Amino acid sequence: MSFRILGVDPGLTRCGLGLVEAGRGRSLRLVDVGVARTRADEDPALRLAHIADELEAWIRRLEPDAVAVERVFAQHNVRTVTGTAQVAGLAMVAATRAGVPVALHTPSEVKAAVTGNGRAEKAQVQEMVRRILDLDERPQPADAADALALAITHAWRSHAVGQVHAGAPGERQTAAQQAWARAEAAARSGGRAAPRLGARPAGRG
Amino acid sequence: MSFRILGVDPGLTRCGLGLVEAGRGRSLRLVDVGVARTRADEDPALRLAHIADELEAWIRRLEPDAVAVERVFAQHNVRTVTGTAQVAGLAMVAATRAGVPVALHTPSEVKAAVTGNGRAEKAQVQEMVRRILDLDERPQPADAADALALAITHAWRSHAVGQVHAGAPGERQTAAQQAWARAEAAARSGGRAAPRLGARPAGRG
Repeated sequence: MSFRILGVDPGLTRCGLGLVEAGRGRSLRLVDVGVARTRADEDPALRLAHIADELEAWIRRLEPDAVAVERVFAQHNVRTVTGTAQVAGLAMVAATRAGVPVALHTPSEVKAAVTGNGRAEKAQVQEMVRRILDLDERPQPADAADALALAITHAWRSHAVGQVHAGAPGERQTAAQQAWARAEAAARSGGRAAPRLGARPAGRG
Repeated sequence: MSFRILGVDPGLTRCGLGLVEAGRGRSLRLVDVGVARTRADEDPALRLAHIADELEAWIRRLEPDAVAVERVFAQHNVRTVTGTAQVAGLAMVAATRAGVPVALHTPSEVKAAVTGNGRAEKAQVQEMVRRILDLDERPQPADAADALALAITHAWRSHAVGQVHAGAPGERQTAAQQAWARAEAAARSGGRAAPRLGARPAGRG
């Protein structure tokens, strides 16, 4: 039994998309990763419609069991927050209409989950995504890595206990979650054995 | 020949919707007005999907020639800007997918268009919408009035010259626009003769 999570790093110029499959033995495997792009000189409504088309196509094609979207706060980047929030909203609606549960994770939750540091640099996130998914190279651009990091975070925070929505920080961990935390720590320290790392990417978007 | 404009005042708790028809002689007539609502304790993805359904239903039912949406800036209200931006994005995508052009107007453009003051209070906007559309009462709640004000603004800024997208502020006015400006001023001062005010609302959403 496997569980497929589509991570969405929302953005109007670049929207990162990455699907990770959590299989038997809690292994995580990259299924597909890509970036939906629009040009800054295009009409904003056409840009949003294009991204909505892409999001729906990914969900239709890859049939995720959950969609993990970055939770957008107005404080993050005032210049781009409107477009970022809009794309996050489109992802939430696309998933809901496809009957797929949506989970939101903040950037600091994602950084903490994959690197152990909620304020980690982008390169560190990319490197940890590379290690956790056993990839030869760091996923590029950062948006693609962030989408995968969202999917990994959701797998670690929820799938191990069979929940779609992540528990609040500070909640007591189950035995399974504790096992995951140990496996995660091992992966972080470079130990490839646990979590058992999956196959090479099945394709690229 | 008439031109129908759907105004959308985006919001996650209350999304104002108002359709105005610009007919022969440049009269403006209220066709329908309403508010799509969601509860703050509902799941955010379900709230967005509900609003998206409503926006699509309004566009399908009323077949607007243009959709005028409030342009959302991050500075406006940090607490609610994410939801506001997301609903604006859903409106832009719904219109684009229905083949309807989208125009964005800032709140101050709308206030300036209907009251002559870009920093007018809500009650003043509601009162001017009432006069311009020859309604017995001020449209309630403010979101409904704001949606109609957006539609009126778009009619005044664009339709008189046959354009969908409004010209930049400071552009030279055509003779038709100047006539409109005079009519608008007359309406503002309470003169009901020009612009010729249309029929009573045909229905309420």
